[in-house]
Amino acid sequence: MTMQLDSSGKLRHLITLEGLDKPLLERLIDRAEGYLTTPGDCPPNGSPFAGRSVANLFFEPSTRTRSSFELAAKRLGLHVLNLDVRTSSRTKGESILDTIYTLEAMACDVFVLRDSEPGLPDFIMRNVEPWVSVLSAGEADRNHPTQGLLDMLTMRRHKRDFSQLSVSIVGDILHSRVAHSAAHALKTLGVGQLRLIAPESLMPGTGEFLGAERHTRLETGIAGADVIMTLRIQKERMNSASIPDSESYFQQYGLTPERLALAKPDAIVMHPGPMNRGTEIASEVADGPQSVIREQVTNGVATRMAVMMTVLETLHGN
Amino acid sequence: MTMQLDSSGKLRHLITLEGLDKPLLERLIDRAEGYLTTPGDCPPNGSPFAGRSVANLFFEPSTRTRSSFELAAKRLGLHVLNLDVRTSSRTKGESILDTIYTLEAMACDVFVLRDSEPGLPDFIMRNVEPWVSVLSAGEADRNHPTQGLLDMLTMRRHKRDFSQLSVSIVGDILHSRVAHSAAHALKTLGVGQLRLIAPESLMPGTGEFLGAERHTRLETGIAGADVIMTLRIQKERMNSASIPDSESYFQQYGLTPERLALAKPDAIVMHPGPMNRGTEIASEVADGPQSVIREQVTNGVATRMAVMMTVLETLHGN
Amino acid sequence: MTMQLDSSGKLRHLITLEGLDKPLLERLIDRAEGYLTTPGDCPPNGSPFAGRSVANLFFEPSTRTRSSFELAAKRLGLHVLNLDVRTSSRTKGESILDTIYTLEAMACDVFVLRDSEPGLPDFIMRNVEPWVSVLSAGEADRNHPTQGLLDMLTMRRHKRDFSQLSVSIVGDILHSRVAHSAAHALKTLGVGQLRLIAPESLMPGTGEFLGAERHTRLETGIAGADVIMTLRIQKERMNSASIPDSESYFQQYGLTPERLALAKPDAIVMHPGPMNRGTEIASEVADGPQSVIREQVTNGVATRMAVMMTVLETLHGN
Repeated sequence: MTMQLDSSGKLRHLITLEGLDKPLLERLIDRAEGYLTTPGDCPPNGSPFAGRSVANLFFEPSTRTRSSFELAAKRLGLHVLNLDVRTSSRTKGESILDTIYTLEAMACDVFVLRDSEPGLPDFIMRNVEPWVSVLSAGEADRNHPTQGLLDMLTMRRHKRDFSQLSVSIVGDILHSRVAHSAAHALKTLGVGQLRLIAPESLMPGTGEFLGAERHTRLETGIAGADVIMTLRIQKERMNSASIPDSESYFQQYGLTPERLALAKPDAIVMHPGPMNRGTEIASEVADGPQSVIREQVTNGVATRMAVMMTVLETLHGN
Repeated sequence: MTMQLDSSGKLRHLITLEGLDKPLLERLIDRAEGYLTTPGDCPPNGSPFAGRSVANLFFEPSTRTRSSFELAAKRLGLHVLNLDVRTSSRTKGESILDTIYTLEAMACDVFVLRDSEPGLPDFIMRNVEPWVSVLSAGEADRNHPTQGLLDMLTMRRHKRDFSQLSVSIVGDILHSRVAHSAAHALKTLGVGQLRLIAPESLMPGTGEFLGAERHTRLETGIAGADVIMTLRIQKERMNSASIPDSESYFQQYGLTPERLALAKPDAIVMHPGPMNRGTEIASEVADGPQSVIREQVTNGVATRMAVMMTVLETLHGN
Repeated sequence: MTMQLDSSGKLRHLITLEGLDKPLLERLIDRAEGYLTTPGDCPPNGSPFAGRSVANLFFEPSTRTRSSFELAAKRLGLHVLNLDVRTSSRTKGESILDTIYTLEAMACDVFVLRDSEPGLPDFIMRNVEPWVSVLSAGEADRNHPTQGLLDMLTMRRHKRDFSQLSVSIVGDILHSRVAHSAAHALKTLGVGQLRLIAPESLMPGTGEFLGAERHTRLETGIAGADVIMTLRIQKERMNSASIPDSESYFQQYGLTPERLALAKPDAIVMHPGPMNRGTEIASEVADGPQSVIREQVTNGVATRMAVMMTVLETLHGN
């Protein structure tokens, strides 16, 4: 996906972490870390790009991700347009591309896109003006690059050396853009070991997640892990996994204090949110001392600030 | 409700006026008055807290109250997130508390909550981080503290000495958070006389509004009053009051010019809005010289600015 | 519509272009042109009116026009309230005028109104405070004054002298507020020739568009034209025009490269958007070298900035 980079190798769009090299990922993570402040302090505000404009186009609704991008943009001094794309231009039959052309013509520099179908970020990226950047905020089950980056930042702040880490991802890995983006980044950053834990039917094919260990039992999958990433499971997916209900899923794949004790004593627990408490994770774990779930959210805003700054510098110089 | 105050007695949350002492109420009202400007002038803008963030969570929709808080926050330089809480996190089954935790982790300092059910502001207040403030923008039929404060500011600008005042509240007092919050403040400020005017079935029990006179006839209830607060009545409540329709309600409880003449000649007329003209109030009165209804709206923005500044100073120093 | 001007002839409201004199139109167009920047550059930001507030009341939804006004306001440093007027105050039975009074009392200086019914802008204009301005963002089939101005700006940047121009408007002219506003401005600016091209049933009566040539055949209507304004057609209107479907409309009135070749070689093609590609315009034309459709969008933001600045100066001095 080299189109994400400009001719001098700088990041111009961000629609997948796949193929981005280690120094680039590390610079993005470093930069995001630089935006972190003590909780309760006023976050950093302003940037040389104040007065430019960002358009949020969420074809799949997501209040938390939209809010994270919105706050990131506002704190950089950018104007934010939130477009309710379900009910506006599409009701008039306007094509998505015409919507993009219109927003470009209004001097929107950055488009944040989320869609439940695959392909839109790439399609838009290939059609925008040279001074415009496309950021994916979640694409079908494939990519969620800013989530991948914030997850790496979260791991690095607790665990430093990726080559020594064993990371276990638990849940509906097959359909998870979070897992896919994390795996791209972990591979590039040279993770020691990646383990996937899922029911057979939710385990991705062997053409994906190369080099990862695969487990159908949670207990063996998290034994000795440094990082446990739990994933959100959707009700309709349980059925396809021959798991009748939330309670049965929890019995087999729910992260309880007892199971967490099988991981390293200083293992951290992650979840991209929103959580189904009592389905994929027990509340004692979600709110316990090993949980870094709320840090992930904090790191998410910082990561989006870092990504926006990076692409804006690529487009307009710094 | 001492939890609203911090250990040194400063206001940290505002979910009810009950129990707040007179000096505190007076400081809030003074401060709100300081934000008032001549109509047509540019309102005050900016504050030491510019760059901090406010989240509006309206579980019960209210454009006018949300707009009032939004403008107050923006004029203080705060970023505002408007969350459509009906359709976002709840559709994914995320608990309200997880939504709050998420927004805290995004560095939202102030939560503005409105709900048609009781209990949420107190519940949230007990669960937020030490650097976060909860403001109620209306809680069921119980509390609407910023409305109570703006009503006091409105009265004081016209009538100065509360101890000399006779205040009549007319309408569905039983279900009115506006009436409850006004009564809390009036009691603390030492109002001379409080009179409640309502049909039997909409009159609160004698355990509430201690010391208030109760009237079922409007004419006797407003005789000689200095202030008449009319309340919004909902259609479904008329039926429970054995009042068949809007017209019948107006005949018994509508504030007409003739009835207003029974109050003091310089009596002021208030309404929290939105008004049902021709139901609880005649248009001649609503738009007449004794009406201060639009001033209430103006005072509302100033009051919300004052409250936000006060809690932000408590949290972060000034 | 002299009420749009204050006693010294300055523009205070903008609800129609009809009756505005040539110097005023030219000053607005000049001022809008001054806000244009090179694509990719940061647009101008800030104004002496920063901190004042604009309320967008769109009774007829329109994401693109609302976004254009929103960005214009934000770039001038104004606070923007987007009111979902379909679901908020009207559900509580609040009259539109009470909504306006409320927003005035919150110190909103500028109201941007869009409605599918006629009459609202004029009605509101007659009822606002002396320090408030009303801007129409589209009124039924009658007026869309900022669209008319942006269209004039677009023509002038390509064609300079209006007296030498032949302008052809194609489509559902009868129901088009865009066509009406363009015609008002073109007449005042002294356009050389105005031609209307439409099926009989969508052609306005002879009491309107005085002096315009009327054509039912596209080919004769655009022969030798300098400017071709294509209009959006709605499906239900095709039926009333005895045109069964989109394809048939395109066959008779769609602007194809072949037909465009009948106009002057340097003719420009306009469309107010959103376009029905393949109905009123071929994609080759919409995206071709003679199309100025995206420039129209850019000019729209600049025009709205110019109009807001002009009325704010009238209200508050400069």
